[in-house]
Amino acid sequence: MTVHTGRHFLQIPGPTNVPDRVLRAMDMPTMDHRGPEFAEIGFAVLSAMQRVFRTKQPVIIYPSSGTGAWEAAIVNTLQPGDKVLMCETGQFAVLWHGIADKFKLDVDFISGDWRHGADLEQIEARLSADKAHKIKAVCVVHNETSTACVTYPRDVRKILDTLKHPALLMVDTISGLGSLEYEHDAWGIDVSIAGSQKGLMLPPGLGFNAVSEKALAVAKANPGMRSYWDWQEVININKAGTWPYTPATNLLFGLREAVKMLEEEGFENVFARHKRHSEATRAAIKVWGLETQCQEQGAHSPALTAVRVPDGHDADHFRKIVLENFDMSLGTGLNKVKGKVFRIGHIGHFNDLMLMGTLSGVEMGLDLAKVPHRGGGVLAAMEVLKGHDAAQSKAVA
Amino acid sequence: MTVHTGRHFLQIPGPTNVPDRVLRAMDMPTMDHRGPEFAEIGFAVLSAMQRVFRTKQPVIIYPSSGTGAWEAAIVNTLQPGDKVLMCETGQFAVLWHGIADKFKLDVDFISGDWRHGADLEQIEARLSADKAHKIKAVCVVHNETSTACVTYPRDVRKILDTLKHPALLMVDTISGLGSLEYEHDAWGIDVSIAGSQKGLMLPPGLGFNAVSEKALAVAKANPGMRSYWDWQEVININKAGTWPYTPATNLLFGLREAVKMLEEEGFENVFARHKRHSEATRAAIKVWGLETQCQEQGAHSPALTAVRVPDGHDADHFRKIVLENFDMSLGTGLNKVKGKVFRIGHIGHFNDLMLMGTLSGVEMGLDLAKVPHRGGGVLAAMEVLKGHDAAQSKAVA
Amino acid sequence: MTVHTGRHFLQIPGPTNVPDRVLRAMDMPTMDHRGPEFAEIGFAVLSAMQRVFRTKQPVIIYPSSGTGAWEAAIVNTLQPGDKVLMCETGQFAVLWHGIADKFKLDVDFISGDWRHGADLEQIEARLSADKAHKIKAVCVVHNETSTACVTYPRDVRKILDTLKHPALLMVDTISGLGSLEYEHDAWGIDVSIAGSQKGLMLPPGLGFNAVSEKALAVAKANPGMRSYWDWQEVININKAGTWPYTPATNLLFGLREAVKMLEEEGFENVFARHKRHSEATRAAIKVWGLETQCQEQGAHSPALTAVRVPDGHDADHFRKIVLENFDMSLGTGLNKVKGKVFRIGHIGHFNDLMLMGTLSGVEMGLDLAKVPHRGGGVLAAMEVLKGHDAAQSKAVA
Amino acid sequence: MTVHTGRHFLQIPGPTNVPDRVLRAMDMPTMDHRGPEFAEIGFAVLSAMQRVFRTKQPVIIYPSSGTGAWEAAIVNTLQPGDKVLMCETGQFAVLWHGIADKFKLDVDFISGDWRHGADLEQIEARLSADKAHKIKAVCVVHNETSTACVTYPRDVRKILDTLKHPALLMVDTISGLGSLEYEHDAWGIDVSIAGSQKGLMLPPGLGFNAVSEKALAVAKANPGMRSYWDWQEVININKAGTWPYTPATNLLFGLREAVKMLEEEGFENVFARHKRHSEATRAAIKVWGLETQCQEQGAHSPALTAVRVPDGHDADHFRKIVLENFDMSLGTGLNKVKGKVFRIGHIGHFNDLMLMGTLSGVEMGLDLAKVPHRGGGVLAAMEVLKGHDAAQSKAVA
Repeated sequence: MTVHTGRHFLQIPGPTNVPDRVLRAMDMPTMDHRGPEFAEIGFAVLSAMQRVFRTKQPVIIYPSSGTGAWEAAIVNTLQPGDKVLMCETGQFAVLWHGIADKFKLDVDFISGDWRHGADLEQIEARLSADKAHKIKAVCVVHNETSTACVTYPRDVRKILDTLKHPALLMVDTISGLGSLEYEHDAWGIDVSIAGSQKGLMLPPGLGFNAVSEKALAVAKANPGMRSYWDWQEVININKAGTWPYTPATNLLFGLREAVKMLEEEGFENVFARHKRHSEATRAAIKVWGLETQCQEQGAHSPALTAVRVPDGHDADHFRKIVLENFDMSLGTGLNKVKGKVFRIGHIGHFNDLMLMGTLSGVEMGLDLAKVPHRGGGVLAAMEVLKGHDAAQSKAVA
Repeated sequence: MTVHTGRHFLQIPGPTNVPDRVLRAMDMPTMDHRGPEFAEIGFAVLSAMQRVFRTKQPVIIYPSSGTGAWEAAIVNTLQPGDKVLMCETGQFAVLWHGIADKFKLDVDFISGDWRHGADLEQIEARLSADKAHKIKAVCVVHNETSTACVTYPRDVRKILDTLKHPALLMVDTISGLGSLEYEHDAWGIDVSIAGSQKGLMLPPGLGFNAVSEKALAVAKANPGMRSYWDWQEVININKAGTWPYTPATNLLFGLREAVKMLEEEGFENVFARHKRHSEATRAAIKVWGLETQCQEQGAHSPALTAVRVPDGHDADHFRKIVLENFDMSLGTGLNKVKGKVFRIGHIGHFNDLMLMGTLSGVEMGLDLAKVPHRGGGVLAAMEVLKGHDAAQSKAVA
Repeated sequence: MTVHTGRHFLQIPGPTNVPDRVLRAMDMPTMDHRGPEFAEIGFAVLSAMQRVFRTKQPVIIYPSSGTGAWEAAIVNTLQPGDKVLMCETGQFAVLWHGIADKFKLDVDFISGDWRHGADLEQIEARLSADKAHKIKAVCVVHNETSTACVTYPRDVRKILDTLKHPALLMVDTISGLGSLEYEHDAWGIDVSIAGSQKGLMLPPGLGFNAVSEKALAVAKANPGMRSYWDWQEVININKAGTWPYTPATNLLFGLREAVKMLEEEGFENVFARHKRHSEATRAAIKVWGLETQCQEQGAHSPALTAVRVPDGHDADHFRKIVLENFDMSLGTGLNKVKGKVFRIGHIGHFNDLMLMGTLSGVEMGLDLAKVPHRGGGVLAAMEVLKGHDAAQSKAVA
Repeated sequence: MTVHTGRHFLQIPGPTNVPDRVLRAMDMPTMDHRGPEFAEIGFAVLSAMQRVFRTKQPVIIYPSSGTGAWEAAIVNTLQPGDKVLMCETGQFAVLWHGIADKFKLDVDFISGDWRHGADLEQIEARLSADKAHKIKAVCVVHNETSTACVTYPRDVRKILDTLKHPALLMVDTISGLGSLEYEHDAWGIDVSIAGSQKGLMLPPGLGFNAVSEKALAVAKANPGMRSYWDWQEVININKAGTWPYTPATNLLFGLREAVKMLEEEGFENVFARHKRHSEATRAAIKVWGLETQCQEQGAHSPALTAVRVPDGHDADHFRKIVLENFDMSLGTGLNKVKGKVFRIGHIGHFNDLMLMGTLSGVEMGLDLAKVPHRGGGVLAAMEVLKGHDAAQSKAVA
């Protein structure tokens, strides 16, 4: 076995690289979750997450994975038999559909080819046809981590508003929040779903729901069984800066520090950085002569890029070679793109030179794995990065 | 405001003091939860938790609080309308009952005075009366953290066996596991429920279920809605050393180290230590002339001691004085013993001198808070500790 | 072998317990010691150390032990053959004498019994007799860590001033700085010597010199050979926030945090706390019927207490028993008090309950080691602590 | 001011990137430096350093910078007036000369152009001319960190042996040890000098001397004044696993872990890795059309590469642009190559993708700083890395 040295390149699209400051903030003695010192932290993270989601409404923080936050969105607002509209943008949409099935929802699943964002025309058509307002919720994935295609929730809100359709708008922004613009209130989102291990730069272990007034009202009226995920109980007890159970204190220590870091950089800068890295990555891919999985102009994810390998080649064999030779983890292709796609995460705590190390590893790996490609992708990526930096330098000076 | 120096004394009965080794193990870069290196960790913690629960059956590890693990026990095995037998041993029994209500179980709640373990005679009586075997589960709290009374699950198993009653035996050992003897298999437990932040010496954020073959069979046959908490899906994917979602990687790093530490000390030594500290604490309380909340000989918890303050005195005022003057957090009285009881945690990563610092803080705090008591409790505690140490020294030598 | 659990009690009089905040500050990537970000840290710690020493003069920070800082004081200001006056207050005075010998100084060593501070009468007598001003320096140990006796440097300054003797006043405050009042400028100290691992709450690895204008002038005129310890070169390069070599960056990260903590608590509070703990410790010793090594009223060290064991008993045997049974490290007797004395450190990052744990361990250890004593010392200590806290509470309220 | 995100690229040739495992090992409570547990660590690091230096002789570990270890070599073995032969290989040779001057040695300084290793012909000539054996020591710098030129100590030893000249051979391997082959015993080195912050992957704060039997004998006979740096006292007390002063405990914790990591990788692999990265770096430089500072075939350092900027360009301006735009620290040109040279560290805890990030930053920086160059250096570097990896893969398979 090869012993690796230097830092591992963790370039899956989440969990992402956790900053030292965040790890060190978590590396502190745990504390009395009912004491006054903890309440300060409780209030701080609740308010920080409102700023991150861009909402004045409550944010619920769960000790859970992101899948838990999906389930929370469902069990608070929907009952067995309720009709929901979902869009097959990729594997995470499929998984969320699976949870909806388990809670016996009636899912209208708009099919997709996994290479585009949600099909807005179909959403409009089905909502428009739903004169009886049987559809209780429209569920979209903001940043489909399996395909690197973005769906813009604002577009869905516009459709709902235009049609005056009362369905709730639920958005999975698990890998979007903290990497892409997101406006829970301004975009009229009813339930936002997020997790800690992506743009928030934390280890996994926290799930989030941001909830509109309307969603809260729906939940209050909903007799469906729930306990752990029940919003109202958490919201009530959060008023005292604590939780109805022992919260994941040390992850909350980290969350406070992580949001501080995002705010020090400035969200606009954070989003611009992710876009720049995405653009540079695509420039490299173009030179390599490979295809991105995403085929929709304007829908390319700033957070990650999914790349197709040519027919006859196995993306996972390529990933294995990259891992063994260059100690870099790339994302695997999921479900129906297994073996056909690998994914490059450029999300979270990241910078230009980490991206260049990443893309160099991909370019060398393509060669070692004998995946046909043209060399020099990294040069194209550097052109993109330099352009931005030069522009930025000018602006700063 | 007083600025404190030195280490805070975190003597609530959980979260407990986390060892530096465990915090440092968690303070490491997160990793690809689908990669080969993570699988090793996954297998390691799954097998470690089997050793801790003393079971050859699967253990399910959730990113959740302990309350999540309660809910998991319920939603996997029971359906609305199912009858369960629960025992009012204290606040945590009450809370579990509350969850059962939310899932529309029909709870037969054997009342209690919060000063004893579960009422075994009543359990026997009700099971015996249940000729139709309507009772699907008997739920007991191993170590009632609100009262410091222990219920011995083996005693309940004996009743079930004697009566040949098929109800599942579910045990909350959240604050018991890792501090008190526990034998999931040998004691015939069907579902064990635990959390990370007590005897396991981790920060909060992980919940556990250990499940018998019988419980698994019941779950398989159970059509009740569930997704996040579904055992079977986790168990299936755990076979590859991973989870059906992104697991809380860094807490798992810590779990591996924590179990390693427990095994280095040896579980027998761990349990003996907790008993010794409990005995020493009670010796001090006796001198102080105060009452323990637990009134059942043989049911005193090794993990914590709940102490009553005399009528006319407020336990929370006392706790506040201790916190402000001595930077020590003691556990508050919960629910109906609010203000009447304070709780001393001597659980987890702890030793004789930490206990003496703790008891000294209590004795000084009683004085400053003008709670009537006799001085010298700490001397009695030292007698207990010395006796054991002397004996131990002899044994070692 | 016994496996210990809980936190080790590190109650030697240095290295002292390092706060988590300081350890975490050091647990950060090292950096370019010639870059702009480092310069900020360089300036910050240089200025912080001026505040700690209470001086407007330069402070030199060495990557070294405290013994290095002793040597630095000598080689910058003195030459072979120079006469210096030293006082046998204990082992550290003896060691400093040893270094002076190695640099061929002519040491006039005022003998002492290791149970008092420096003999001020003898200092006065010898300086007074030195009409020719052959004595180039008077060297005293502020806080003799081997005996727990304090010498007040201001008293020596007064003698020098009264006699108009031009000798430099050099003070080893290695275990004094940060625990006892210290005023480099106001007390007219010429060279102060300190180390990181005592009241400054850092791991060992940094030595300090604070230097008066006069000392600097003497050094400039001193042709003696030196390089590493040369003040002037360091001072010159410190003007740019850096050092003439690669400084111990991570220890400097910790130093910045440690001084921040001392200033948050407030130096007056820090000093009062050490005095209170010293008083409480002596109250326990009195009840035990043991003797403190220090026999001079008013010279008892706030930072540590040295305790004599009765004849026929071995202090190191006692220490071994305490270490094995209670996982507490106490300081050994050094040199001629080896086996006769053990030392209790109550210095640095410490509080009332840590002290009570410590004293309980001593009291139990005395019993296990069969050292004759009366029980109940811990009660006397609690009386002292409670009194102070009550008074303080009143003052705060 | 730009706020940086992602990891800083610390590509100066020391301090180098410290592995998380090493930082975490240091982030532990300090301990009693006279207790049994510390002695184990003391013995472990002393023996580890013997393995690193490849010697069966004592290694002395100082709490100091590397300059302290230079001084130690001098003051133990030489006296004022002693003649030593030194070689002007670059700035570090100049600095060592400066220390020799301060200790009044008579330095014969063989001049050099800072673009080659030591002038072996001149060494031979001067030793050969020294029939009276007035030259007491030959001092060479193994890896000149200011120029990236290597001098092979074995070549110097051959000259001494051939001439039967009794001078001691002293080697500064501060930036060589742990990155380049080094054999203290087999190469007949008398005094080796090293520091913690280079190939040993630790923060700065420790200096090292490895000493031959002959050097020890010379030191014993040397009446020169010394205390802190005195080998013999340290060696004597090291026999008990401790030091004559409080050692830098936490740096020693880190040292133990760092050597463990080097041994896990295997020294041969460590050295091969450094060579491969050096080769890849030079391949990039060749494409860029720039010159390495080192002009001697076979003397290129595996640990770092010094690069000249064309006349009329300022290397420090370039470095500033790289720092501001890409958050990477490169080494400055020192002394007479100030502004003419920048240095790329590829030493210590490092890997292929970190190198590619580094070289990409250099290539983009050259562009932004308008330093004339050809693009595509990174492609050439990748060719080198791929070739090696492919070969290695084959060998492993």
